[in-house]
Amino acid sequence: MKKGNTIFFKNSPRIVSYAAICGSKEKEGIIGGFADVTLDDDMYGETTYEKAERKMLVNSISLAIEKGGFNETDIDVLLSGDLLNQIISASFAARRYSFPFLGVYNACSTMSESILLAAALTDAGYIKRAVAATGSHFASAERQYRYPLELGCTRPPQAQWTVTGAGSCVVASGKEGIKVTSATMGRVCDYGVTDVNNMGAAMAPAAADTIMQHFKDTGKTPDDYDMILTGDLGALGSRIVKDLTWEKGYDISDRHVDCGEIIYKVIESEFQGGSGAGCSAVVLNSYVLSKMQAGLYKRILFAATGALLSTVSSGQGESIPCISHAVELEI
Amino acid sequence: MKKGNTIFFKNSPRIVSYAAICGSKEKEGIIGGFADVTLDDDMYGETTYEKAERKMLVNSISLAIEKGGFNETDIDVLLSGDLLNQIISASFAARRYSFPFLGVYNACSTMSESILLAAALTDAGYIKRAVAATGSHFASAERQYRYPLELGCTRPPQAQWTVTGAGSCVVASGKEGIKVTSATMGRVCDYGVTDVNNMGAAMAPAAADTIMQHFKDTGKTPDDYDMILTGDLGALGSRIVKDLTWEKGYDISDRHVDCGEIIYKVIESEFQGGSGAGCSAVVLNSYVLSKMQAGLYKRILFAATGALLSTVSSGQGESIPCISHAVELEI
Repeated sequence: MKKGNTIFFKNSPRIVSYAAICGSKEKEGIIGGFADVTLDDDMYGETTYEKAERKMLVNSISLAIEKGGFNETDIDVLLSGDLLNQIISASFAARRYSFPFLGVYNACSTMSESILLAAALTDAGYIKRAVAATGSHFASAERQYRYPLELGCTRPPQAQWTVTGAGSCVVASGKEGIKVTSATMGRVCDYGVTDVNNMGAAMAPAAADTIMQHFKDTGKTPDDYDMILTGDLGALGSRIVKDLTWEKGYDISDRHVDCGEIIYKVIESEFQGGSGAGCSAVVLNSYVLSKMQAGLYKRILFAATGALLSTVSSGQGESIPCISHAVELEI
Repeated sequence: MKKGNTIFFKNSPRIVSYAAICGSKEKEGIIGGFADVTLDDDMYGETTYEKAERKMLVNSISLAIEKGGFNETDIDVLLSGDLLNQIISASFAARRYSFPFLGVYNACSTMSESILLAAALTDAGYIKRAVAATGSHFASAERQYRYPLELGCTRPPQAQWTVTGAGSCVVASGKEGIKVTSATMGRVCDYGVTDVNNMGAAMAPAAADTIMQHFKDTGKTPDDYDMILTGDLGALGSRIVKDLTWEKGYDISDRHVDCGEIIYKVIESEFQGGSGAGCSAVVLNSYVLSKMQAGLYKRILFAATGALLSTVSSGQGESIPCISHAVELEI
């Protein structure tokens, strides 16, 4: 059933297991302690950043499958994407497995997009179990989107730091685990931001649009959620999303948490926090889901946010279209 | 319901309208006459190749909506992706519309992937109507994946030509239109091909794997289909897929057609035919669907094929992982 842009799942597909791997900088933050694996060396024993990123993704997928007590043959499909051109991390990760692969891409909103589709396919009874997975690597993202690390470019204060990490979860039918109650599909929003160093400002309107659409479609209010978790708006973007929703009559300020804001120790005058597909993937699939399982949070809205630009689109003078897909998780 | 890797749709979601736009070189081929719009100038009145590609995609989406007698508000979601880094054609196209957007990417298999997901969401009753769309542009693909056009590089005989074109269809619930009966999700196959000019050889094993999996899961044989349509294997790849399936006891030779092979006039010693996400999108959403509607083909298997490489993965010495998703279409 759908109302507005929100799909309501009849049979409540469940997140039955999850795993997260993060890098050395992430290890020092609050979230690092909740990840299954933390790296001391972000090369992860590989010869290139891209291969290190892929290895994190593969290992987080395998770990999520293993932690759920499953074998590879129990999985019906992998839904995954990442920030590298032609989502090679996801495609090459999928090569390691015998189950089918559906590639998805909505930048840093890929985690919620893949959970949304995994939940829909499971809820409808087409499949029994899907893995939703994504990740990113600071060094591979920097050299693809910005500058070679060797240049040592200075970062402006509105910049975020691409998270080195990967997160995966198994979405399955059944009665055990964390329910995926509903999912709100995001629309592309573009408020005309052209500063590629200010993703938070670009993405905040998309997050606000989806969160408010979710409230409208479900008839719920911010009070119905223990946490409203955005993907990677960072400190500035978080303030903007709270302002934008407050202006429309929704006060989310006392329960809004941003993955980008909590993954590192953020000092806003210095930098804004984390970003990248791995940011929300790591925070959700470690700290958040484990605290839900422990009963600390009963219901959360997870709205990962993505900036749909490329170096070519920005080079051609385009502003940054953004998107946010939201999934409602309940215990 | 799923058997093996094939989803069977209970309510037979329908392709109710479709549209295709193609470039000047495509116009000269057999398929060009069936496209809704053909360009005399591949710049399509834009200042960059990327913007021309985007304009084709946008116009094919709008045309498919219009041809079905729908308005923008009748559409629940757009499923789209393309070959440009970060699928900017799809994302920027989605910015033009008020409905939600789910970005997908499986290279040139994106057309069948997006129909598969659109059919699943529609069949399950989550949504009423989805647009599945993709496209490509020779010039934007050349400069991103290969060499600047200005270099005038010689093409080896095993190379294919990226199609300038876009195709879209509206998948809806109801009793009218072309049925989507089932869909087989592809696995990633990699036989170790590293020649980026020989996509046909790289992708043929993935096509063979999915086609044979489809026969196995559905209990059907090649004789049950009027046409088995692969995406963009080209002349050499088409011979390989026929060999690979024949070796396993399936003779598809008398009903196999490849979109890449029919879109241009192919002389194999000179070149292999068309490729790119736009190749199968244009052929399906013009010639094939119109001939199905006219009753010429009653049941076809559409298996678009994708090469999941990037310039970085090939530069790092990797072979080319490939995938093919198949949808069964019936009238």
